[in-house]
Amino acid sequence: MACVINVNLPQQSYEIAIAPGTLNTLGEYLGKLNLGKKALIVSNPTIFSLYGEQVLTSLKSSGFQVSTCILPDGESYKNLDSIKKIYDIALENRLERSSTMVALGGGVIGDMTGFAAATWLRGINFVQVPTTLLAMVDSSIGGKTGVNHPQGKNLIGAFYQPQFVLIDPEVLQTLPVREFRAGMAEVIKYGIIWDAEFFAQMEASPHLDALANINPELLETILKLSCQAKADVVGQDEKEAGIRAILNYGHTIGHAVESLTGYTQVIHGEGVGIGMVAAGQIATNLGMWTEGATARQNTVIVKAGLSTQLPSGLDIEAIIDALQIDKKVKAGKVRFILPTEIGAVTITDQVPKDIIRKVLQEMM
Amino acid sequence: MACVINVNLPQQSYEIAIAPGTLNTLGEYLGKLNLGKKALIVSNPTIFSLYGEQVLTSLKSSGFQVSTCILPDGESYKNLDSIKKIYDIALENRLERSSTMVALGGGVIGDMTGFAAATWLRGINFVQVPTTLLAMVDSSIGGKTGVNHPQGKNLIGAFYQPQFVLIDPEVLQTLPVREFRAGMAEVIKYGIIWDAEFFAQMEASPHLDALANINPELLETILKLSCQAKADVVGQDEKEAGIRAILNYGHTIGHAVESLTGYTQVIHGEGVGIGMVAAGQIATNLGMWTEGATARQNTVIVKAGLSTQLPSGLDIEAIIDALQIDKKVKAGKVRFILPTEIGAVTITDQVPKDIIRKVLQEMM
Ligand SMILES: NC(=O)c1ccc[n+]([C@@H]2O[C@H](COP(=O)([O-])OP(=O)(O)OC[C@H]3O[C@@H](n4cnc5c(N)ncnc54)[C@H](O)[C@@H]3O)[C@@H](O)[C@H]2O)c1
Ligand SMILES: NC(=O)c1ccc[n+]([C@@H]2O[C@H](COP(=O)([O-])OP(=O)(O)OC[C@H]3O[C@@H](n4cnc5c(N)ncnc54)[C@H](O)[C@@H]3O)[C@@H](O)[C@H]2O)c1
Ligand SMILES: [Zn+2]
Ligand SMILES: [Zn+2]
Repeated sequence: MACVINVNLPQQSYEIAIAPGTLNTLGEYLGKLNLGKKALIVSNPTIFSLYGEQVLTSLKSSGFQVSTCILPDGESYKNLDSIKKIYDIALENRLERSSTMVALGGGVIGDMTGFAAATWLRGINFVQVPTTLLAMVDSSIGGKTGVNHPQGKNLIGAFYQPQFVLIDPEVLQTLPVREFRAGMAEVIKYGIIWDAEFFAQMEASPHLDALANINPELLETILKLSCQAKADVVGQDEKEAGIRAILNYGHTIGHAVESLTGYTQVIHGEGVGIGMVAAGQIATNLGMWTEGATARQNTVIVKAGLSTQLPSGLDIEAIIDALQIDKKVKAGKVRFILPTEIGAVTITDQVPKDIIRKVLQEMM
Repeated sequence: MACVINVNLPQQSYEIAIAPGTLNTLGEYLGKLNLGKKALIVSNPTIFSLYGEQVLTSLKSSGFQVSTCILPDGESYKNLDSIKKIYDIALENRLERSSTMVALGGGVIGDMTGFAAATWLRGINFVQVPTTLLAMVDSSIGGKTGVNHPQGKNLIGAFYQPQFVLIDPEVLQTLPVREFRAGMAEVIKYGIIWDAEFFAQMEASPHLDALANINPELLETILKLSCQAKADVVGQDEKEAGIRAILNYGHTIGHAVESLTGYTQVIHGEGVGIGMVAAGQIATNLGMWTEGATARQNTVIVKAGLSTQLPSGLDIEAIIDALQIDKKVKAGKVRFILPTEIGAVTITDQVPKDIIRKVLQEMM
């Protein structure tokens, strides 16, 4: 197994290589890309202690001058202070416009590295080496980069595409199972919004809740079809003028839940899982989707070891208030992505608050 | 007098309106642009006390919900802390993707507002209302936005184009003469790098050192041809892959001088004046330009009330070291823009250090 997905954008195209056991060949991949000779690896201690050496050695033996920036682990460090640290190391090592920032990590590291790359010298090269399932299938592709504002997630950021994405699925072996499941939420999302056949394949699998329980063919399918779905959507609408918003399926309520629980009690993918359940129920309540489809979706969510209920102690009105500061608000109206069938969704800002409230109450 | 210059870019085009006495009609201009209904004016106390009320009233009477962010005046506040303040006010006022940030000020306010607009919600609308000569003819056009790093100017930033630029030359009446002259440096730059005829028009004017000494026709010419030159160059090379670099004429040495004097003893345009003198001398030393052309350039620089000498107390080796951290460094080589005739320049990284040293010594 080894395959390449192309992300085709008006201004720039790039490849996602999905290739097991190739982490230690990153240097060779980059060698072909005609980048400058300096590289800065951004990672965190957890990931760097597992995979840093391999990546560092590979880049060095391909002739790169490599520096590193190791940021603390966790969503709570996804902020401007971390970006400043990247800037400082970029300055210290005299990174130039042709130099490359390499994100070695999950979505947190990827989003921050991308934002730093987008804004250092008004944009330098950027390569993603995602190490979580979520980063592989979602955050490393499509160019959304950024950090959190103390009062809201991902409020600060830029659209900035990587030059290359290397997915080595073998690194998932060390990923905590909770993180694996969180990534599965985004995978299931692609089934619902884009690819009914892919959804059916997941439905057919007896287990989805841990890497160890998924056969290599299914893992390959999961990575390939997820990346393809994301590449397809982003290729049609890079800057989210329209259809790209469907990738936010499950994210409207999801973000609110994440933010109200401080981004630790409920992590991103878990929030998305909960958000998809809510969106499914809202769609059913509005008569847009069937009970049967909702049940199919929720069964797969449960099979991936994800919760279909709100975390205890959350106040429903607080969730509804939190929806207002989401980036997806337009002219004061909260925008929802709602399923119409398995494999298709629609975008609407016409969801009555009463229905949101009712659905959330049922999920308590 | 009232004219419109078009900036034509592959992804986006926009208009620069040069129209005296129209500051209080900004709302009407924006009303035609199909923007969201919220606007945030970013300015500083100096400028806002002079022109804020007019702009605020105009936007409000065109139906905008307007908030303001007044940052301290000065280059030393062009940093990430100021950007954070803009973010906070954007959040407080629930700015949305369709909302607009309006920069009312000089290059400092324009660069910061643009960067905040580029990075808030990954990009919201942005309008420039430049109030210095430098901002009118240079910084408000072309999409370079950003802030300084404690150790280097403009190291943090993004390319982000405005939707519209409104130039009301009448606001120049309150601009300190020192700032007017600094702006003239960029104006003269266009003559040298792009437009020999325009240069000759300036050469023919008895005075260039203060607004009061320039007749309205020449002022119109200055604004129009400068904006046109900038629009032409940026239209050919938005992201500075090639020719756009010629706009950095005078900036290689200029930036170093500015930074070593803490951005206050020598302001940007003054640095550019000094840098043009240096670049001219370097070109002459390299046999690329004539003594006669150098003299013509320097005469116009002097006529604009600008210095052709380094500020006292500057160490030449410190200047040479400072060149190394400039964004214009490529593969460790310092890049110079050097004139070959009046109206044309070339880009080179082949300037021997000895020549730089010699030229700087002569300018002490
Ligand atoms: N840019 C986008 O389009 C996009 C899309 C979705 C999510 N996101 C963002 O992604 C972030 C979430 O990313 P995430 O879920 O990858 O979380 P994460 O980056 O925090 O990683 C999760 C945890 O797993 C650890 N880890 C990572 N790889 C590992 C490995 N191979 N072995 C062992 N441990 C490993 C990390 O150190 C971390 O503790 C959020 O900030 C979210 O906003 C961005
Ligand atoms: N983005 C670009 O392409 C670009 C190009 C050139 C320069 N710049 C940046 O622009 C900045 C310099 O801009 P600047 O020269 O406009 O300086 P500035 O913005 O600091 O303004 C100069 C001074 O004039 C005051 N002022 C502004 N308008 C006034 C008015 N109409 N009446 C009275 N006072 C007024 C300001 O308050 C300030 O004190 C630098 O930071 C430089 O890096 C950017
Ligand atoms: Zn997500
Ligand atoms: Zn300049």
